[in-house]
Amino acid sequence: MSSDVVDREMMARALRLAERGRYSTSPNPRVGCVIARGDKVLAEGWHIRAGDGHAEVNALAKLEGGAARGATAYVTLEPCSHYGRTPPCAEALIKAGLARVVVAMTDPNPLVAGQGIAMLRQAGIVCESGLLEDQARELNRGFIQRIVGGRPWLRAKSAMSLDGRTAMASGESQWITGPEARRDVQRLRAQSCAIISGVDTVLHDDAALTVRPEMLAGELDCADSCRQPLRLIMDSQLRLSPDGRLFSGGGPVIVATLSRDDSKRQRLEQAGAEVIRLEPDRDDRMPVLPVLMLLAERGCNEVMLEAGARLTGSFAQAGLIDEWFVYMAPTLLGSNGRPLVTLPLDSMAQQRGLVIKDIRAVGADWRIHCALRQPDTGS
Amino acid sequence: MSSDVVDREMMARALRLAERGRYSTSPNPRVGCVIARGDKVLAEGWHIRAGDGHAEVNALAKLEGGAARGATAYVTLEPCSHYGRTPPCAEALIKAGLARVVVAMTDPNPLVAGQGIAMLRQAGIVCESGLLEDQARELNRGFIQRIVGGRPWLRAKSAMSLDGRTAMASGESQWITGPEARRDVQRLRAQSCAIISGVDTVLHDDAALTVRPEMLAGELDCADSCRQPLRLIMDSQLRLSPDGRLFSGGGPVIVATLSRDDSKRQRLEQAGAEVIRLEPDRDDRMPVLPVLMLLAERGCNEVMLEAGARLTGSFAQAGLIDEWFVYMAPTLLGSNGRPLVTLPLDSMAQQRGLVIKDIRAVGADWRIHCALRQPDTGS
Repeated sequence: MSSDVVDREMMARALRLAERGRYSTSPNPRVGCVIARGDKVLAEGWHIRAGDGHAEVNALAKLEGGAARGATAYVTLEPCSHYGRTPPCAEALIKAGLARVVVAMTDPNPLVAGQGIAMLRQAGIVCESGLLEDQARELNRGFIQRIVGGRPWLRAKSAMSLDGRTAMASGESQWITGPEARRDVQRLRAQSCAIISGVDTVLHDDAALTVRPEMLAGELDCADSCRQPLRLIMDSQLRLSPDGRLFSGGGPVIVATLSRDDSKRQRLEQAGAEVIRLEPDRDDRMPVLPVLMLLAERGCNEVMLEAGARLTGSFAQAGLIDEWFVYMAPTLLGSNGRPLVTLPLDSMAQQRGLVIKDIRAVGADWRIHCALRQPDTGS
Repeated sequence: MSSDVVDREMMARALRLAERGRYSTSPNPRVGCVIARGDKVLAEGWHIRAGDGHAEVNALAKLEGGAARGATAYVTLEPCSHYGRTPPCAEALIKAGLARVVVAMTDPNPLVAGQGIAMLRQAGIVCESGLLEDQARELNRGFIQRIVGGRPWLRAKSAMSLDGRTAMASGESQWITGPEARRDVQRLRAQSCAIISGVDTVLHDDAALTVRPEMLAGELDCADSCRQPLRLIMDSQLRLSPDGRLFSGGGPVIVATLSRDDSKRQRLEQAGAEVIRLEPDRDDRMPVLPVLMLLAERGCNEVMLEAGARLTGSFAQAGLIDEWFVYMAPTLLGSNGRPLVTLPLDSMAQQRGLVIKDIRAVGADWRIHCALRQPDTGS
């Protein structure tokens, strides 16, 4: 095997290791590390959760003293150069005597990008960066967007009939998608640091919005120690019920509201919620961007929007949905049904373009994975 | 190779030959024939168009006298036993001295099914039936449905945005699907004996509803001699314009109407249309089943419905759509847009289930191929 091929294979392996942290590393990024000599893997490691060892340290810990001397380390993210909860990984790699370090991407924070690599090079280690960078960026796009853009990656989820309806005009609805689609949604939830929903959805379904580990049993390393995402409910008038399933377990609950009603607030606080009052937007409605910024401040990398047509429409109109999973059930709910998303457009010129990344069968349903194009500034 | 495998391969080959008649054989079925000795193909043929030779005769014609003696013929449809436009194929096979005839399916007409096989067996030829029968039936499902059920196979086509809309509320619309999807629609049109559309669609788009062979150049054997489908326009009040592109070329035009207005009728007849008056249905609207029966009487095996939400909804509600191609463009037309199909349902119990057969990318668009489940008799 040529050394190029070896390098790619080792980095691909490190990426697969990083992916094992999909459900647990936040607010930290997902990182994997392989230590190899030629095409022989000496040790490997990945970051499991914040506070525990970084990927490089976890890999090195598996080797006897001196065993890594002269070897190559493949890391999916530039090793850190600063003292945080743990000593800098660059230092650990230097101490272990590695000859070469290959990095998929540099630190996304422009203020520290390159410092880890510089530290390694100063110690005489050969450093390369950019191998399988696209895959590495995709794996941590939430982390990157939070660090660089100050807001989390927003993943919306909707379920509709083939004719684009979510419920009957009366509001009557029920699960229209099957068990495989629901399990798939659980997977997306488990990857998310927070779930955003609206008060109507929570009240209508008495939704808990938790991850149910039993539905993901046997998948990756999550089943027994699943992180429960924070749940943020948009509830302008504090109509949530403190008796709902929302408050019977799972992660923390934040209620974002416009209301100044102290008694309602206290009722929800007693149920365990944190209530945060926001200023209405120009249309006197709940603002959406501040909600995302608030979640970024709490260290949320990936956030999932599981809401009805109205709230999903608000985020869509604000251009804040980064990716959208639309589960399409093989049924017609008819032309009086409620729309997929509230998006009042008047002319073809206003249509909102999408990029459909893929459509795949999920049980009897189909999952459309797409992204909204940014609206034209003119419209 | 075992003889079973040889048999399957030969019949698969005969089916591929039959398929070459996809655009041309109606009102006849698509039929292919391979004559082989062991695993060696001696000759092959397929039916090209009504009036020309049948598949078996076309294959035999390629052999010197006596060359087929003792060989096996693989035919996708039971050889005919009656004198029609041509002498019976069973007779030709007997004369040629074949030892064995393998048939994919018997004649769909229950009154004559088995007679061709009986004639062959009486002549001492070994006959088997049912090899790759499902594929053979699918290839001729239009022919079969017409012969057995008295109506053609109805294939509907729609184009929508991801959110299930076909136009803006104002009626403003434009091609939302790309050139590959339009070419795909041409392919479906070319397979169809007739196109059904509504007066509004024809007027709005000044639609010609013809097959444009240049768009299919190089595909199968159709490009230079494409059959132009009959066009049937549902026009209850005879609002069609005799100056439309509909009358400037292509296949015959039938206008189905409720109107008794003789002057309008004559105007359209002068433009070349045949005008047929129908009795209104119980809701005083254009009836849909009689239109299909009329086309069956004209020998139409496969008919395509290219209409707006209302007319497509009428056929859907009547349970007459056998398959549906929905082209989904990667765009949102918004919650005020016009529906995919007019289907006024009030409760979840009334939802119309679908079977989605596949979804595939067609250029930037996606094609959903589905079938409507029959409505519950109770609803």
